[in-house]
Amino acid sequence: MKNKYILGELIGSCFLVMIIVGSGIMAENLTDDYAVMLIANTLATGAGLFVLITVFADVSGAHFNPFVSFVMYLAGKLKRKLLFNYIAAQIIGCLTGVGLANFFFELPIYELSQKSRDGIYIFTAEIVATFGLILVIFGSLKSGKLVVASCVGLYITAGYWFTSSTSFANPAVAIARTFTDTFTGINYLNTPFYIIAELLGAIFAFYVIKKIFIK
Amino acid sequence: MKNKYILGELIGSCFLVMIIVGSGIMAENLTDDYAVMLIANTLATGAGLFVLITVFADVSGAHFNPFVSFVMYLAGKLKRKLLFNYIAAQIIGCLTGVGLANFFFELPIYELSQKSRDGIYIFTAEIVATFGLILVIFGSLKSGKLVVASCVGLYITAGYWFTSSTSFANPAVAIARTFTDTFTGINYLNTPFYIIAELLGAIFAFYVIKKIFIK
Amino acid sequence: MKNKYILGELIGSCFLVMIIVGSGIMAENLTDDYAVMLIANTLATGAGLFVLITVFADVSGAHFNPFVSFVMYLAGKLKRKLLFNYIAAQIIGCLTGVGLANFFFELPIYELSQKSRDGIYIFTAEIVATFGLILVIFGSLKSGKLVVASCVGLYITAGYWFTSSTSFANPAVAIARTFTDTFTGINYLNTPFYIIAELLGAIFAFYVIKKIFIK
Amino acid sequence: MKNKYILGELIGSCFLVMIIVGSGIMAENLTDDYAVMLIANTLATGAGLFVLITVFADVSGAHFNPFVSFVMYLAGKLKRKLLFNYIAAQIIGCLTGVGLANFFFELPIYELSQKSRDGIYIFTAEIVATFGLILVIFGSLKSGKLVVASCVGLYITAGYWFTSSTSFANPAVAIARTFTDTFTGINYLNTPFYIIAELLGAIFAFYVIKKIFIK
Repeated sequence: MKNKYILGELIGSCFLVMIIVGSGIMAENLTDDYAVMLIANTLATGAGLFVLITVFADVSGAHFNPFVSFVMYLAGKLKRKLLFNYIAAQIIGCLTGVGLANFFFELPIYELSQKSRDGIYIFTAEIVATFGLILVIFGSLKSGKLVVASCVGLYITAGYWFTSSTSFANPAVAIARTFTDTFTGINYLNTPFYIIAELLGAIFAFYVIKKIFIK
Repeated sequence: MKNKYILGELIGSCFLVMIIVGSGIMAENLTDDYAVMLIANTLATGAGLFVLITVFADVSGAHFNPFVSFVMYLAGKLKRKLLFNYIAAQIIGCLTGVGLANFFFELPIYELSQKSRDGIYIFTAEIVATFGLILVIFGSLKSGKLVVASCVGLYITAGYWFTSSTSFANPAVAIARTFTDTFTGINYLNTPFYIIAELLGAIFAFYVIKKIFIK
Repeated sequence: MKNKYILGELIGSCFLVMIIVGSGIMAENLTDDYAVMLIANTLATGAGLFVLITVFADVSGAHFNPFVSFVMYLAGKLKRKLLFNYIAAQIIGCLTGVGLANFFFELPIYELSQKSRDGIYIFTAEIVATFGLILVIFGSLKSGKLVVASCVGLYITAGYWFTSSTSFANPAVAIARTFTDTFTGINYLNTPFYIIAELLGAIFAFYVIKKIFIK
Repeated sequence: MKNKYILGELIGSCFLVMIIVGSGIMAENLTDDYAVMLIANTLATGAGLFVLITVFADVSGAHFNPFVSFVMYLAGKLKRKLLFNYIAAQIIGCLTGVGLANFFFELPIYELSQKSRDGIYIFTAEIVATFGLILVIFGSLKSGKLVVASCVGLYITAGYWFTSSTSFANPAVAIARTFTDTFTGINYLNTPFYIIAELLGAIFAFYVIKKIFIK
């Protein structure tokens, strides 16, 4: 049933951004050490991804990510007429999530971020981050939902640290993070570049996975 | 056998609160950085939940939470006459746990917390926290006890950070935490509001899970 | 073959103590924050326990702990004539491990610890810590080695934090830790009380597990 | 198909070093506490290893390590004519990874490390570290790729802390880390000693695993 798909993507994407943004705010409130903040943000995000993917895998496939849905469509695993519904649900879910997280911590529900994340170095890192995410998803897909959930959660755990972009790797999340002026925010001027980088990474990944994972 | 059920809920709930409260006290004794305290508290609680649910799942179902038992009853998975025994065992277990944790660290066995946790923001966060917990339990139930244990442990790992209430999501735990004036305590004036928020979250979750998880 | 059993317990116990003591020294060298030290010590120990139990479960049963072997003997899962070999291998392995860890970090190979860990509060905590460990092992045993490995690793992860004794829960490890004057050391005057507490916890656990886990 | 093997080792080794080196740089940029840096580095590396081994296990065996490939060859699990291709791919992958990580963070793509890691204590630790790694791989191999991935990821998690060498345990990684003057770097004068220590550990491990794991 179509409604179940949409509801799954909506609730899952909402919780995903709520976890990313909320844990960043909590961390910022509790310490002055930026590495400790990012460790807290990493633990919450990695844990949250595992849980959300496990719980919603059999409901909607647990994409929560327009470029994941897009590559799933390219690989013949998502119908074209569902693609737009998925992307809409993901964006609405993510925007709801950032608003709730801001609200929980007594901040304006929507506020533009001042956090600059620009430059060719960060742009390149975001390409590689998304390339890796798509590769990991397709490389673990045949082993079942728990393996995908573990791999995605732990890939982002590493990604928060090894890329200078902190691996958003998700355009719906990037859009949502534009609307919180806190630890995980991104200046609206940088958001389009993140999305372009993510698209490049996803497309590049699609060519590689056809070579090594898809028969 | 009924005694086995009760013994399971009693010991499990006792260890759960011992872990939550004890790890908070240890952390408070060792550092001045509040985020480091919460990271320690998170690691211990997440790890403890996985272990306790895995070990007691086949003994009592490993609820350790009156509202989980209540929703299990609503879903026809727990008999009415056991419900009250479960809740009693959970509350007694949690109260024993907080006393032991306080004792381990040379504090008064029972002491009222001064820690204020109030306001509409925290109240809303606690509704969402409990909504998420019930959703996660019912979304992972069909995949077996290890998946439930992983999902609950990791959901609370995220919950400690993304909600301003730090996701108690459990009225028996909320009552017990009223009796420790340490990192994880809660002022007795706020406890009833936490319990009301948790009830609202649990009921709201029950309506959603009927739509997406229960056939 | 008997030699394989002994070799397994010897190498496993050696690595276990090397990990516990070595990670404590490394942490002490790198920070002044005691909670950060204990987080590092916890991560290394929890990870190490999972790996060692998984790898040696089919070799020797992966006890690495005289009181675990003793309760296994009481439960009819270890032959009497092997019990003494197991305990000897565990103690020799643990003593080798502490010497190697000290050596790695340019410290005297064996040195008495000055770290006082005494009082009725810590004594009680160590009883509960060991009670919990034995309960967790017997509660997860029927689910296979990976579940035991996860549960023991994560139980000790929690135990380092929720007990004021930091959950040694192992007399061979307690003896070895007497010989390092670093983060994880214990004054030789306190070691016997730790061992008595562990024995009490193990015996008490044996009575409870007969009620709820052993048919 | 041979190309698939090589591509797997190339991409996997590249990501492995990118994660190790990149997370070290990020950590160094965010905090002054060396233990917090190593915790961040540990989380990223452990998580990354699990993901990379899981994803590439069915592509190339996911060695990413010349001495692992060498022992696999000794154990009859890798053909001689593939051994040199594997090692070449691993070294090229690792060198690509360190260059990318440096680039992400606006550093010179290749730069010699000034970080001294010498002395008999560190040398001994690196022998034990590699001995343990090979032991863990062969001890978990029969339980399937997910268990190997968990065990290797968690062994290195512990290894970063319990050895004074921080457990490189991989000559291709040691070579690559020579070319970053950041947290995870190694002075080129020490690299050969690391490689010799790793070879000794690997050979010693091979004799022990024949006794306890290989029939």
